[in-house]
Amino acid sequence: MENQCRMLNFENDYSEGAHDAVLQKLLETNMEKLPGYGSDRYCESARDKIRKACDHPGADVFFLVGGTQTNSVVIASLLQRFEGVIAAGTGHISTHEAGAIEYTGHKVLTLPHKEGKILAKDLKKYLQDFYGDGNHEHMVFPGMVYLSHPTEYGTLYSKKELEEISLVCRTYEIPLFLDGARLGYALASEDADVDLPDIARLADVFYIGGTKAGALCGEAVVFTRQAPPHFVTLVKQQGALLAKGRLLGIQFDVLFTDDLYRKICKNAIETAGRLKRAFLEKGYRLFIDSPTNQIFVILDNEKMEELKKHVTFSFWEKYDKSHTVVRFATSWATDTDEVRQLARLL
Amino acid sequence: MENQCRMLNFENDYSEGAHDAVLQKLLETNMEKLPGYGSDRYCESARDKIRKACDHPGADVFFLVGGTQTNSVVIASLLQRFEGVIAAGTGHISTHEAGAIEYTGHKVLTLPHKEGKILAKDLKKYLQDFYGDGNHEHMVFPGMVYLSHPTEYGTLYSKKELEEISLVCRTYEIPLFLDGARLGYALASEDADVDLPDIARLADVFYIGGTKAGALCGEAVVFTRQAPPHFVTLVKQQGALLAKGRLLGIQFDVLFTDDLYRKICKNAIETAGRLKRAFLEKGYRLFIDSPTNQIFVILDNEKMEELKKHVTFSFWEKYDKSHTVVRFATSWATDTDEVRQLARLL
Amino acid sequence: MENQCRMLNFENDYSEGAHDAVLQKLLETNMEKLPGYGSDRYCESARDKIRKACDHPGADVFFLVGGTQTNSVVIASLLQRFEGVIAAGTGHISTHEAGAIEYTGHKVLTLPHKEGKILAKDLKKYLQDFYGDGNHEHMVFPGMVYLSHPTEYGTLYSKKELEEISLVCRTYEIPLFLDGARLGYALASEDADVDLPDIARLADVFYIGGTKAGALCGEAVVFTRQAPPHFVTLVKQQGALLAKGRLLGIQFDVLFTDDLYRKICKNAIETAGRLKRAFLEKGYRLFIDSPTNQIFVILDNEKMEELKKHVTFSFWEKYDKSHTVVRFATSWATDTDEVRQLARLL
Amino acid sequence: MENQCRMLNFENDYSEGAHDAVLQKLLETNMEKLPGYGSDRYCESARDKIRKACDHPGADVFFLVGGTQTNSVVIASLLQRFEGVIAAGTGHISTHEAGAIEYTGHKVLTLPHKEGKILAKDLKKYLQDFYGDGNHEHMVFPGMVYLSHPTEYGTLYSKKELEEISLVCRTYEIPLFLDGARLGYALASEDADVDLPDIARLADVFYIGGTKAGALCGEAVVFTRQAPPHFVTLVKQQGALLAKGRLLGIQFDVLFTDDLYRKICKNAIETAGRLKRAFLEKGYRLFIDSPTNQIFVILDNEKMEELKKHVTFSFWEKYDKSHTVVRFATSWATDTDEVRQLARLL
Repeated sequence: MENQCRMLNFENDYSEGAHDAVLQKLLETNMEKLPGYGSDRYCESARDKIRKACDHPGADVFFLVGGTQTNSVVIASLLQRFEGVIAAGTGHISTHEAGAIEYTGHKVLTLPHKEGKILAKDLKKYLQDFYGDGNHEHMVFPGMVYLSHPTEYGTLYSKKELEEISLVCRTYEIPLFLDGARLGYALASEDADVDLPDIARLADVFYIGGTKAGALCGEAVVFTRQAPPHFVTLVKQQGALLAKGRLLGIQFDVLFTDDLYRKICKNAIETAGRLKRAFLEKGYRLFIDSPTNQIFVILDNEKMEELKKHVTFSFWEKYDKSHTVVRFATSWATDTDEVRQLARLL
Repeated sequence: MENQCRMLNFENDYSEGAHDAVLQKLLETNMEKLPGYGSDRYCESARDKIRKACDHPGADVFFLVGGTQTNSVVIASLLQRFEGVIAAGTGHISTHEAGAIEYTGHKVLTLPHKEGKILAKDLKKYLQDFYGDGNHEHMVFPGMVYLSHPTEYGTLYSKKELEEISLVCRTYEIPLFLDGARLGYALASEDADVDLPDIARLADVFYIGGTKAGALCGEAVVFTRQAPPHFVTLVKQQGALLAKGRLLGIQFDVLFTDDLYRKICKNAIETAGRLKRAFLEKGYRLFIDSPTNQIFVILDNEKMEELKKHVTFSFWEKYDKSHTVVRFATSWATDTDEVRQLARLL
Repeated sequence: MENQCRMLNFENDYSEGAHDAVLQKLLETNMEKLPGYGSDRYCESARDKIRKACDHPGADVFFLVGGTQTNSVVIASLLQRFEGVIAAGTGHISTHEAGAIEYTGHKVLTLPHKEGKILAKDLKKYLQDFYGDGNHEHMVFPGMVYLSHPTEYGTLYSKKELEEISLVCRTYEIPLFLDGARLGYALASEDADVDLPDIARLADVFYIGGTKAGALCGEAVVFTRQAPPHFVTLVKQQGALLAKGRLLGIQFDVLFTDDLYRKICKNAIETAGRLKRAFLEKGYRLFIDSPTNQIFVILDNEKMEELKKHVTFSFWEKYDKSHTVVRFATSWATDTDEVRQLARLL
Repeated sequence: MENQCRMLNFENDYSEGAHDAVLQKLLETNMEKLPGYGSDRYCESARDKIRKACDHPGADVFFLVGGTQTNSVVIASLLQRFEGVIAAGTGHISTHEAGAIEYTGHKVLTLPHKEGKILAKDLKKYLQDFYGDGNHEHMVFPGMVYLSHPTEYGTLYSKKELEEISLVCRTYEIPLFLDGARLGYALASEDADVDLPDIARLADVFYIGGTKAGALCGEAVVFTRQAPPHFVTLVKQQGALLAKGRLLGIQFDVLFTDDLYRKICKNAIETAGRLKRAFLEKGYRLFIDSPTNQIFVILDNEKMEELKKHVTFSFWEKYDKSHTVVRFATSWATDTDEVRQLARLL
């Protein structure tokens, strides 16, 4: 454990605490007496700034603590009892949330994926087939669409792709929910084709991830139309209402001041870019060419074992008998010096 | 809203941020790269210190974010499907958690209370009656006992009372769960008759509240026997697993260094004591004489309206046509100067 | 077990099979090929007859199998996630359904009762207090009212009482749900003050119990305004959709032909009347004077033990050290000869 | 609707009432006074006969009303909170139960299928991969295996296949649950390779379907090891406990007297065999060659429309632009004359 501190760390994008400006503000405001449950003025200010950043004055903004919690609360609050949520089979809610959605009584209805993304045409076919099936009253109704941006594979939806998906959702009158746990890295990507106002225009609800992008914890949920009735009660019922809501409000207030959120995420993109070039120069093959802060590389197993002694990274999946797909993640906090050191080890 | 900052604040015990030592440690450790989900060395160190403070080396310790979340996760993890949890009708889980327990599929079975406390004899009678009822297979089985210490009314269980309740639980082989959202104020009370090792000996699971006693957020759950199998998965499933578990580990590590937790809670007890004396000296009547950080006073409605202009406090219940019960709460952060100012207003 | 058949049986009102006319119709129609899931012509015909009997042409009628199932399906289909159901503390859903309501995620909010009945004024106060509580967003919203008619104690609501309760519900815009598992015995009672059209006018949903009144199984649910959207899917989801819906449709079609339902229930009232008179003549005390098919008597414990050798009845509750409250139930199938035999044993 | 009665009916296997012997027994026993909730002597007798037919004296047998209900109750009673159930993607619980499993909080984990069947090797790989994944504490644990016999496509597991699957389950210590909604047609099939004692030996729990094989309603659940603790309470909690349990007991008592269950199911197999030969003789192509009571045929769309005027059958799926897969089902009640009439229409 002690050792990990000295090793190079590319295991994930939540290994450090918070951005310095965030911490400073927590310090400055610490002894202010503020009302609880998100009703303080920092929450209010953060809401305003987020509405402005989204160019969406009518949005309802709430702050929750983590990603799985946010997915669970948002989905269970928007679905009717007879409905499930459509997601890629590789979606985080489909695989890595310990059944949090099912725990709330709802099925995750899966679509095939292309590098983590769902396609508007598959979605449309699913919906057509469902309503075309004479037996559909015995089935789970598709009640909303979930996607993540970036996806589990670090890939990005283009504006056109999002527009097509959004159009299908609106045709069938089901909300589109965008999981933005790593949204900062999507917005800061050089390939970024959609910005916050696009997302606010195309999604019915989405969240702006803080935990993986400069905050100690926290996700800002944006309902672009309207939050479900009594949303605070629903949040409380799922044990997700923070007494000291200030902790979230202050952090997002800082992150959405002077475009800090995007600026600090840029670092992850730049360091990931350098690292990717280093891999390619040394002849490594990428498994998926992600334009964000996650690099998926195919490693020779021997090389993998050797690297493990000096650097942490994540196992992704077996490639073949002698190769493995692994993930290197950068973040707002990644030091270019670390990248250089890692490059030397390749 | 702005105004609230200048008013005297006795509304609750979570109006400020964190104790300074806690914040300082968050700052110092901020850029350390640590593994996620509570597996970092600060969490480990905090666990050790808590086990020592409880004189209970075999305890399993976990960190969760807030009180309702902790109640929901612990109860839903320990109960079988056919079981409910016994609590006072005034218990927090019975009334003020928006149905969080029922949302997990379990009934809260209520007992009468005496100043917020349940009595061993009522508990025993409930259990005897249940198993004596030939029809009990059509009823919800009593599967655990919930109590809070201090209670909703700021009162404390004596060691004898806890021992009696614990004995009934062990006779019927159902776990005893102690909600310690304000445990610090119980331990620091001059009337304190039970300490952490007593609680660890008598309860099967309890938590040490951080949110209301010096932390930004966080509750330390102590399973004195053993955590339920795959507890981490259950926590994840309820959306309560923090990626940056360090945030909780670091805070509790500080709070359990050099007895800080108890020391800072002492301030709430002392300021509450002063305030109580001021009320009594001015001829006010107490609704309940709480030995912790909550003072329940019966106010003449006119006086109440006048006070509201200068100080925040909580409505508790109507007393009679012209009087109201209100609550003044102190905390680790209450300034004696504020108490003095308030006393002058009485 | 064998022995029970020869004993006098007053244990409950579901000890026999079905009324002869019901069985005959099942026999006659047995080989007809009918579509499933309640879409057959007998279901349709039964629905029509029930709508007529209720004088409520716009009602939506569905058939379910049993009482607890019906309570669970109706309540879980009508409540929003943030809502619970108000009921008497002695209500069937509060006590004897093994937590079926909580299993669907909803709290049962209890009111005091008077001989099993809730009072409009208590209901009104509950709702006023709830909305008057500044903290109510942290509480379970009262989302519907449940009552049973007859109640658990065999008592009946008067028309005035029902009208008052209905008025409160409509003022607060929450549905009134009437559990009619034994509705036949209410309608046939000499004290009957409300008939089916009254109930259809005052309740938003209710059911007409078949299981305890002439059917092998089955409860007819009547939504007087409109069934919840996709109710069939909700029923299926709770495992309550019968493939051979005909089994329910045929039975209710017979029961609602030529007023059979009320006629056969009359027998329970008459035999209960005789039995009650027998008890009173012999100097027994009634615990509650029920005008329906349940007689609650206070028995000397010795007498109780003696009677147990010859007749089955239900334990209700302890009265004092030497007395017990027990229940004798009659039904559509009770033979006056049995009543005579029992009277002789008193 | 009226018309349907005169049309040939091959839509499903639950279009008629009950086998005549079953109805006669209901008639004979109708006025016997019997205790409720499955404690009567007919239930006991049926349990005994089923245990004998299974050659499994220690089995726990319970009676439930329908298939989806049984799947939901059994699965939700056996799974731990952190577990899901493995099933074929085409399994009934995966697709056609309106999310009944998810409603109880559990995920259906899907495997690929081969003509509706899962393969032991796929199951083994799934389990190996799960436990091999370092991240599996964030995933739903595979807690039991569900399969149906016959499958959704009318196909049968061979003894060898079942043994292999059972072995994997026992290696990983997860129960094997066999959905036998149409088990009678499996046992009566000429291809039958497994009998009741085999199933009782290889599965941990299974059910013998009555609804589709001679009963008005009812499924007999057999726990070959032991029922979950307080199973009756769990059944009640899900609204599945029948007051007049006799209705189920009497029916199964008759069906398991003199091998009636198997004998009457033989009729479905014979009529399906005749019908299949008729299709093949006329040059139709089978989509799947099922050895049980369901025939999946590829019809030219024009022919399909023509047939629809005279016979009911089920749409299964589109085959190509001009062809459709449809299903013809026979049952214990199918008349050979009807088969002859249908053959003439081909």
